[in-house]
Amino acid sequence: MASSPSLTPEDVLAFAAELADAARPIARAYFRTPLDIVTKADESPVTLADRAIEARLRGLIEARFPDHGIFGEEMGVKPGREPGTGPVWVIDPIDGTKSFVTGLPLFGTLIAFLDGGAPVVGLIDMPALDERWTGLPGQARFGSEPARTSPCRSLSAARFFTTSPEGFSGADEVSYRRLTAKAALRRFGGDCYAYGLLASGHCDLIAETGLQPYDYMALVPVIRAAGGVITDWSGEDLTLASDGRVLAAATPELHAEALAILRA
Amino acid sequence: MASSPSLTPEDVLAFAAELADAARPIARAYFRTPLDIVTKADESPVTLADRAIEARLRGLIEARFPDHGIFGEEMGVKPGREPGTGPVWVIDPIDGTKSFVTGLPLFGTLIAFLDGGAPVVGLIDMPALDERWTGLPGQARFGSEPARTSPCRSLSAARFFTTSPEGFSGADEVSYRRLTAKAALRRFGGDCYAYGLLASGHCDLIAETGLQPYDYMALVPVIRAAGGVITDWSGEDLTLASDGRVLAAATPELHAEALAILRA
Repeated sequence: MASSPSLTPEDVLAFAAELADAARPIARAYFRTPLDIVTKADESPVTLADRAIEARLRGLIEARFPDHGIFGEEMGVKPGREPGTGPVWVIDPIDGTKSFVTGLPLFGTLIAFLDGGAPVVGLIDMPALDERWTGLPGQARFGSEPARTSPCRSLSAARFFTTSPEGFSGADEVSYRRLTAKAALRRFGGDCYAYGLLASGHCDLIAETGLQPYDYMALVPVIRAAGGVITDWSGEDLTLASDGRVLAAATPELHAEALAILRA
Repeated sequence: MASSPSLTPEDVLAFAAELADAARPIARAYFRTPLDIVTKADESPVTLADRAIEARLRGLIEARFPDHGIFGEEMGVKPGREPGTGPVWVIDPIDGTKSFVTGLPLFGTLIAFLDGGAPVVGLIDMPALDERWTGLPGQARFGSEPARTSPCRSLSAARFFTTSPEGFSGADEVSYRRLTAKAALRRFGGDCYAYGLLASGHCDLIAETGLQPYDYMALVPVIRAAGGVITDWSGEDLTLASDGRVLAAATPELHAEALAILRA
């Protein structure tokens, strides 16, 4: 890697897996226990599990890579030795907080490693399901098996996911409706799990808005290495400065068809 | 039971559990394998798993209780010895077909036993999650543990589930929006699993329309024995002739508040 010549993607992934292993028992300990976490104000409840996991993962990263940057959902940004270009860990301790607080096992822990501003390694861990997707250049895996997107090339045959149809407003809602009206099937409520399912060929297309870097960075290496395409709604690569609109597709052809509709 | 004095609810539940045990390996064998099951026409894909499970369960029921009625999603009605009043098994081999075809482990097998037209025993089995809820008068269980609904008595504090906001139209959509605007949290995509989560206290309120008897009959004994209330949108008991509108709540108070809004 540009800024860490001695650190290979495989090294990074091995450490990311250690982080996910450390997060799992914390997530499981809090899952399905009564917590005062349902807030109407922002509908993005912050849980004790969120904070406990992020504190643990930050501690592990700081111990192993004291000069790496860290960007977590709960505790913000710790600049690394080369802000903007150096190695940065981007973490979402609990993605899918609505799932978490309603007993649904679809919440995940997201871990991304960025170098030069681009996500190189990504990990999607599902603590309650004992499932994990990983991605680095040229290698996407579901557990120990290779992950591969579906061959779906047409919107009319596509199984579409989004976390909630309520996530769209204004012009985005118009675009969303135009897009999904042509899909074979719409399914709601996936959060990060939908991207894992896409990487494994079980769904074909995802469009969302309002995501944060810790929501999408870990997905990018997984989707790409599995054969899919993931960008913003302009077709540009996702960066820390993206606007939170995400489009992921099983094939370049399906991505192009969806992108044309979103841009129209 | 009225028509089967020698058959106790416990006997019925034990047999229902045998049925669910027989269904599981079939569901698991088909889950996440490529199937030609996504159809745009009705968006209610029928899978090979659906048919294979129902055929197996019908065979088992007919062998054990040859004079019982059977009502299944795939293969219709077999009248029993006393149509309308005698014992009837109501089966949904795969509830949550959209989950099934997109690799989501949230699909379930639903088994209900009716006597005198009323559901006496219900079972919600989640083959891919290895989770099961059961209900008979006075006893709701999640696995071997008692299941109990949450103490939520107020819509403003309620975690609301429905399978899809697209399931509502016309006046129902107006009612749905009025109801859910006041809820603490809305979550989509649960199918039968949401009712299990409600029975275990993880969510508080569910409203749906367009359900069939095989979608809701198995839920009734579970929700009731767990302390919840489940009716149609008029507050009436669910029967084989109900109109497919279902309202389930963790407490009588929450049910009354929701019902008043749906009826307004």
